[in-house]
Amino acid sequence: MKRSIIPFFSILILSWSIGFSQTTSEIKEDFKPSTLNQPGQEYPQVNSQGYARFRIHAPAADSVRVSLGLGGRGGTKLTKGEDGFWVGTTEGPLDEGFHYYNVNVDGGKFNDPGALNFYGSVRWESGIEIPAHDQDFYAIKDVPHGRVQQILFPSKSTNTSRRAFVYTPPGYDKDQKTKYPVLYLQHGWGEDETAWTNQGRANLIMDNLIATGKIKPFLIVMTYGMTNEIKWGGIRDFKIEPFQTVLVDELIPYVDANFRTLANQSNRAMAGLSMGGMETKMITLNKPEVFSQYALLSGGTYKPEDIKDKSKVKLIFLSCGSKERPDGVKSATVALKEAGFNTVSYISEGTAHEFQTWRRSLYELAPLLFKN
Amino acid sequence: MKRSIIPFFSILILSWSIGFSQTTSEIKEDFKPSTLNQPGQEYPQVNSQGYARFRIHAPAADSVRVSLGLGGRGGTKLTKGEDGFWVGTTEGPLDEGFHYYNVNVDGGKFNDPGALNFYGSVRWESGIEIPAHDQDFYAIKDVPHGRVQQILFPSKSTNTSRRAFVYTPPGYDKDQKTKYPVLYLQHGWGEDETAWTNQGRANLIMDNLIATGKIKPFLIVMTYGMTNEIKWGGIRDFKIEPFQTVLVDELIPYVDANFRTLANQSNRAMAGLSMGGMETKMITLNKPEVFSQYALLSGGTYKPEDIKDKSKVKLIFLSCGSKERPDGVKSATVALKEAGFNTVSYISEGTAHEFQTWRRSLYELAPLLFKN
Repeated sequence: MKRSIIPFFSILILSWSIGFSQTTSEIKEDFKPSTLNQPGQEYPQVNSQGYARFRIHAPAADSVRVSLGLGGRGGTKLTKGEDGFWVGTTEGPLDEGFHYYNVNVDGGKFNDPGALNFYGSVRWESGIEIPAHDQDFYAIKDVPHGRVQQILFPSKSTNTSRRAFVYTPPGYDKDQKTKYPVLYLQHGWGEDETAWTNQGRANLIMDNLIATGKIKPFLIVMTYGMTNEIKWGGIRDFKIEPFQTVLVDELIPYVDANFRTLANQSNRAMAGLSMGGMETKMITLNKPEVFSQYALLSGGTYKPEDIKDKSKVKLIFLSCGSKERPDGVKSATVALKEAGFNTVSYISEGTAHEFQTWRRSLYELAPLLFKN
Repeated sequence: MKRSIIPFFSILILSWSIGFSQTTSEIKEDFKPSTLNQPGQEYPQVNSQGYARFRIHAPAADSVRVSLGLGGRGGTKLTKGEDGFWVGTTEGPLDEGFHYYNVNVDGGKFNDPGALNFYGSVRWESGIEIPAHDQDFYAIKDVPHGRVQQILFPSKSTNTSRRAFVYTPPGYDKDQKTKYPVLYLQHGWGEDETAWTNQGRANLIMDNLIATGKIKPFLIVMTYGMTNEIKWGGIRDFKIEPFQTVLVDELIPYVDANFRTLANQSNRAMAGLSMGGMETKMITLNKPEVFSQYALLSGGTYKPEDIKDKSKVKLIFLSCGSKERPDGVKSATVALKEAGFNTVSYISEGTAHEFQTWRRSLYELAPLLFKN
């Protein structure tokens, strides 16, 4: 199993160096505050081409740099103005969607005081949003909204009360007779159970899909998947058992006992992004009696011979960004289809190993789940 | 009404300069990471006397200061070590409980990369926790836990989907026949709807009280109260109407339609801290037909003559920290009692205008609510 872990790191690092979608010579001066800024904050800003501009107050600093920008060149260097503010614009446009970043002030790593924070890289990072041509599917709209419920569930194996978030669709509380299928949805390395709603906007994607009648409503359960290791490099020694125990033996029974679920294999799916895909692969293969639908988002592939009992698998979904070596996903899909698996693949155009790929992947995956 | 706003600011500023509970000469070297650190982070640390020690990486900086410390002296100055880390310890012990802070690096205001962030002062600030002698009442314990549900409710008056959090007690989903009273609970100036659970641990306070049978379970609803102004100084022009409309005409009907509430005046309470107390006072006086139980936590007082119809008021609760001029609360309580109001006051010993005062206040208030 260990071998399969390495590619996620390679992909992650690759994505940092190809974060630009093009280079243009003329920068349009139509910058607006990022939608992920803290209330009332004017910076960072984004223009209609996808350039980002930063502005940081540090009057006595000698050097201020932002980690977003051309990878090999160490991000974007800011220039100090007479007012004590450091300002700079990325050398090229950024990919559409969400990006993590941080600010280096005189050699120390801090966050941008103007931006909201998002948990990634085992720290709360600054976030910026480059408006995407397809942002409508994850926008907050005037439609019925589901809820995101924070639960604390008892975990004997870790001797803690652990946190999870449960998305319940609009109307969940109204009709007490309806029971729902459940998708267990995992974050990536260095992220946590907040990522799929904060960065991924999973609840809004679901609200919008449900409002248009495109999907059968289901619950989504999100919990912390780095049960045993949180340090850099720890993933090499990653063992799935601690998290598998929390998920399968503790969280699933708790959810089935406390929410109105269809508590059986055919109504249970698991999906994960990046490291969460690795976990999804390991757990679905270890526990074929628990999940019937599997999805790996920028998180590896299955080989037909990985799967012992074909009759237990109703759907395999594989996805990644077009900037992430999609050949692996494509060839695995061909092989799985040839072996008779109901397999769907999706390549997110123009995106790398980042949340826009995974927002789109969830949007593509949701209508395929729990079809019968 | 405008006059009554000024004291909150005075108190707030006062509390900054009296954040120390004592001065001792010997600092015990039993420092441990603050419980509010980011995962895996060793600093900031706190010792058994309440001193805080900070450690910030900024090898090329000329000056690093932490805002926590002796008020008049501009916080705690850190000293650079040869490893590029700046280290410093507060000159005295801090008050028990939660404190906001930030880090000044070469004149710019940043957060401590080691600490979790909490929304206060109209920005996400760093937070540190000084272990309190009474921390048991807000600890995470192995008891049944309620849920914190994020809802998005439609608001015509502001033309947005607005966010609120709803605490539902353990078992809320199990017994579909039970209906619950509701406490509407407001944050302070510069905070938002996340404050009462993140900083205040309101959900854990409720879980623990319910587990010991000390209170009748109820719902708590928390939403954003700075509807019209988020800028410094804006509170002087504060008008209650925009928020009152959101709360009374939009949120309450939504909650009553979507949760199992006892939807009447006698089962509805409102409480708020600091500016939220000011809002509570204004709204309860404007809308006596909506709420029957009022609580101002470090948020001013009522005069008997403020209240037109005494028969509508079942409880008035007034509280503050002992370091916040408690005489106002005490004399108002005497006057209200003399005028025949069921009034309870509470002074939090050894705390100022900070969340430890308000955690304790909620703990004292909850058993008094919805008694019949």
